[in-house]
Amino acid sequence: MGTAGKVIKCKAAVAWAANQPLVIEEIEVAPPQANEVRIKIVATGVCHTDLYHLFEGMHQKGFPVVLGHEGAGIVESVGPGVTEFQPGDKVIPLFVAQCGECRFCKSPKTNQCEKGWANKDYDVMSNFESRFTCRGQKVLQFMGTSTFSEYTVVEQLCVAKIDPAAPLDKVCLLGCGICTGYGAAVNTAKVEEGSSCAVFGLGAVGLAAVMGCKAAGAKRIIAVDTNPEKFDKAKIFGATDFVNPKDHSKPIHEVLREMTNGGVDFSMECVGNVEVMGFRIHYQRLGVSVIVGWTNLHDFSARPITLISGRTWKGSFFGGFKSKDGVALMVKAYLNNKVKVDEFITHNMSLDQVNDALELMKHGKW
Amino acid sequence: MGTAGKVIKCKAAVAWAANQPLVIEEIEVAPPQANEVRIKIVATGVCHTDLYHLFEGMHQKGFPVVLGHEGAGIVESVGPGVTEFQPGDKVIPLFVAQCGECRFCKSPKTNQCEKGWANKDYDVMSNFESRFTCRGQKVLQFMGTSTFSEYTVVEQLCVAKIDPAAPLDKVCLLGCGICTGYGAAVNTAKVEEGSSCAVFGLGAVGLAAVMGCKAAGAKRIIAVDTNPEKFDKAKIFGATDFVNPKDHSKPIHEVLREMTNGGVDFSMECVGNVEVMGFRIHYQRLGVSVIVGWTNLHDFSARPITLISGRTWKGSFFGGFKSKDGVALMVKAYLNNKVKVDEFITHNMSLDQVNDALELMKHGKW
Repeated sequence: MGTAGKVIKCKAAVAWAANQPLVIEEIEVAPPQANEVRIKIVATGVCHTDLYHLFEGMHQKGFPVVLGHEGAGIVESVGPGVTEFQPGDKVIPLFVAQCGECRFCKSPKTNQCEKGWANKDYDVMSNFESRFTCRGQKVLQFMGTSTFSEYTVVEQLCVAKIDPAAPLDKVCLLGCGICTGYGAAVNTAKVEEGSSCAVFGLGAVGLAAVMGCKAAGAKRIIAVDTNPEKFDKAKIFGATDFVNPKDHSKPIHEVLREMTNGGVDFSMECVGNVEVMGFRIHYQRLGVSVIVGWTNLHDFSARPITLISGRTWKGSFFGGFKSKDGVALMVKAYLNNKVKVDEFITHNMSLDQVNDALELMKHGKW
Repeated sequence: MGTAGKVIKCKAAVAWAANQPLVIEEIEVAPPQANEVRIKIVATGVCHTDLYHLFEGMHQKGFPVVLGHEGAGIVESVGPGVTEFQPGDKVIPLFVAQCGECRFCKSPKTNQCEKGWANKDYDVMSNFESRFTCRGQKVLQFMGTSTFSEYTVVEQLCVAKIDPAAPLDKVCLLGCGICTGYGAAVNTAKVEEGSSCAVFGLGAVGLAAVMGCKAAGAKRIIAVDTNPEKFDKAKIFGATDFVNPKDHSKPIHEVLREMTNGGVDFSMECVGNVEVMGFRIHYQRLGVSVIVGWTNLHDFSARPITLISGRTWKGSFFGGFKSKDGVALMVKAYLNNKVKVDEFITHNMSLDQVNDALELMKHGKW
């Protein structure tokens, strides 16, 4: 293609500093180096993890940066050593690597990869290795991806090739939120047929967790949110009961225990709130609790007895999916009408409107 | 028998108040009522949970009480409705019920029983229903058992009938510590062949966890204790490596990660220390952490990321054994030389020496 091997100038939303709106800038995207893929981003979602980086205390080492990690696009060119991809392939960039060769990739117990960014630049969630510059300054990449840009460069270990029939403006959401929530129920909690579940927080991740509970055959799926506007949507994905903690004077764990004769079998925390993580476990008499919501600012805590008396606490990262394999399968499942994606979409906006999109998310308007 | 249906006067160690030595008293033990079994206790171990009740802040509602929950004895008489036991049976009293009929007993996922004491008198770990009196005053029973007495009365749901060939002065230890630690490794963590394990705290529970890891085929079993006198014993049970945190200036999780190329597969906290629970999870890159040590005074805490990045946290109560079934099987395993018991025994003492025994335990001299 005409741009291969050349620097591409394009638009991107640059975060210059914490707690500041993103700025639409012209950036330079260098050609892909060895084992890298340059991707024309066609669509991207916004995720609370972007906000988290931007507003919730990440240190300045993480700026300037191009955020966004839930996108889909088309391969523009590939660097030396790339055999898996060629220009024109439809792809989804991944924030979890899958090299397929390390001890983690070979273990069925985890979806971590020893070669992923999380093993290198963990603290700031940004790659210091970056192909972006803007106004003469290096701009970091976020979570190895950076989808708030018309073009990005990603390691081939962090790219999923997807079905050419997939509509990119829909399946971009499989790059984070939907897989994270759905997989938390199906892969991490391993929700069982006929079981009872509680899902806390009805953002995209929570709604996807509801969908995962239903797919796994749960009999009862209790959707919990302080914003009752979310309940209609949760119903579409399979929720059977709806609880707004604000409607109850007694602690929410008592409400749920009364509803379920002692507690649910599985619960999923999709808020990223350490208080919910800590007391949520009391919702259950036993069973499995999964922490999905991403936060790393505070500790969560609980009495040891809550675990000792028979519970299990698990964390879920990208829904426990092996990233390349999982995303490709989820795209196929969508094309075969096995999972919903369209129903998650509330707004279609342009890159120029990215700050408006973040604001809508911040206020729960999706 | 001559005593059936009559009040038995016998010796027991009574705890009259928190933070006071036990007092050897003559108590009256009433005949067993419906579904109860009166047992002549032949031998008992001492356990940190006894100390915990006595010294670590249990409120006064829990006194006076006869402690002890790790005993073995012979059925003296049975109350109406008891068909499973008859006088002369060798038995081990259980602090976890197994009714066999409730939803928990029918589930393979838990060893809780809806009919156990923990569902009734949770806060003080004592049954208000008691067959003991002393000096005209009702004396509570501890954890449904009370083995620091020559006779006790236990619900039939909380008694395991064991092989008549079993030496009671040995198998009494299967009533708590050994099953708790061994089962934490085998049942709760489900330690796998060829895996690496870390066991924190080398009291009876920790040593039994080491034995469980070895039985499960672990390749590497790292025994951790601040008292290096425990290491020789840990070796007998199968430990392959020994770490005294006091010998290292760097945090213990870094020491272990270096030893194991990133962390152990399984870890078991057998101390009852919330700090160990909280930071211990960092010993692992992924894998399963099990909390075994009993404490309920403080919260444990951790950063959510420690779970989200791929770990599982479980609690283990009585090693996950269904109590009646598990104890009977463990007694058989001992008689068949499949598990060690004798090696746990450091002192043989009389009931009169119970305070000395508790002191020895307190100072790690066993």
